[in-house]
Amino acid sequence: MINTSHPGNIGAAARAMKNMGLHDLTLVEPHSFPDGEATARASGADDILEHAQVVSRLEEAIADAQLVIGASARLRSIAWPQLDAEKTAALVAERAEKTAIVFGREHSGLTNEELERCHYLLHIPTNPDFSSLNVAAAIQVVAYELFKAHMQPQGPAPEPRESGATAAEMESFFGHLESVLREIHFLHATKHEMSILRRLRRIYNRAQLETEEVHLLRGILTRIQRRTP
Amino acid sequence: MINTSHPGNIGAAARAMKNMGLHDLTLVEPHSFPDGEATARASGADDILEHAQVVSRLEEAIADAQLVIGASARLRSIAWPQLDAEKTAALVAERAEKTAIVFGREHSGLTNEELERCHYLLHIPTNPDFSSLNVAAAIQVVAYELFKAHMQPQGPAPEPRESGATAAEMESFFGHLESVLREIHFLHATKHEMSILRRLRRIYNRAQLETEEVHLLRGILTRIQRRTP
Repeated sequence: MINTSHPGNIGAAARAMKNMGLHDLTLVEPHSFPDGEATARASGADDILEHAQVVSRLEEAIADAQLVIGASARLRSIAWPQLDAEKTAALVAERAEKTAIVFGREHSGLTNEELERCHYLLHIPTNPDFSSLNVAAAIQVVAYELFKAHMQPQGPAPEPRESGATAAEMESFFGHLESVLREIHFLHATKHEMSILRRLRRIYNRAQLETEEVHLLRGILTRIQRRTP
Repeated sequence: MINTSHPGNIGAAARAMKNMGLHDLTLVEPHSFPDGEATARASGADDILEHAQVVSRLEEAIADAQLVIGASARLRSIAWPQLDAEKTAALVAERAEKTAIVFGREHSGLTNEELERCHYLLHIPTNPDFSSLNVAAAIQVVAYELFKAHMQPQGPAPEPRESGATAAEMESFFGHLESVLREIHFLHATKHEMSILRRLRRIYNRAQLETEEVHLLRGILTRIQRRTP
């Protein structure tokens, strides 16, 4: 949960998580935490609050996640894969990876920069005329779908994709890519630096690289650097 | 909602209902209503609160309902038909009758006498060790399932992905990539040429590139070529 303003929402989220068998809550710069209002609304899910991690940046929160999913209103004309809550839960159950689901601020959701960190965007189907869910209510719906998906009688256990790159590995890769693009003056040649970098992020996030593949791509980058005058 | 103690829950329920396209809220002897806390938590669903009916007995609330469903923890050895939230929503959508869904008190749910009024009991699957949902969270989950069930027949048409790169565009891209890897002597440096090229193909195929994105990546390749001695 990012920059949550109302501590009651943190407590309600903890309760919703525990109701659905989830444990790991990370708070990115909450306005007030710990807080009596959070504890009251958690209504017994105190262990989730006690073990909640508080960090100052989203990058820290998702560093070791292999699959990062951002909750967002449905976006039009955008290059990210978008899934509804039910399909998200099916994906998470199938992939069996370390997954982070990111929920934004009460009034403004996730920034574009935060969205860039996500492999998928998740939306909850709603009345189009009144579509903004309370953040704890959204967490309740998503946690419920995850619980249902994990209860589904499953076929043969999916092979865990143990080797999926972590968000931290992806960040290092993007940093490396950006340096190389500067060294070869690709970024100088265009006015649209940020848009280029965003589009590249989307491509590689969508590909959901394995750690080995990140090493391969970084090998290529290093080779380019050696040959750049 | 019966005998709701916390007016905040009434507001949160109104918001959850409106998010999912529901309108008619009836309150049976709420402890405090109207109430500023309800209005605050409704967060714009004021019309639901304004039109909410307040009655003194459950019988009045459900008087004109054709189908009455009570929300309850899962009960053992009981004579009522019990449905989970998803099956309830399917039933409601199929029957298309005037339906009332009854939610009980925050701490004690529905009395036996109230359960007697119900045709079906509805439960939300939860973690058995921590199964009591907040009442507004339960309403959110049920309203969400109702919304999904009503959307089922005419799900939104999937957006055509008109701008996806063609196989021919991808082949040209892979040819270009391979040339560059030779020019920078990346391929010479390894014994596993074919395996490297196959792995790169897999990465970019998985990303399902748009034509525009192929152009971007080829722009980078061209820039690398210009700077290679």
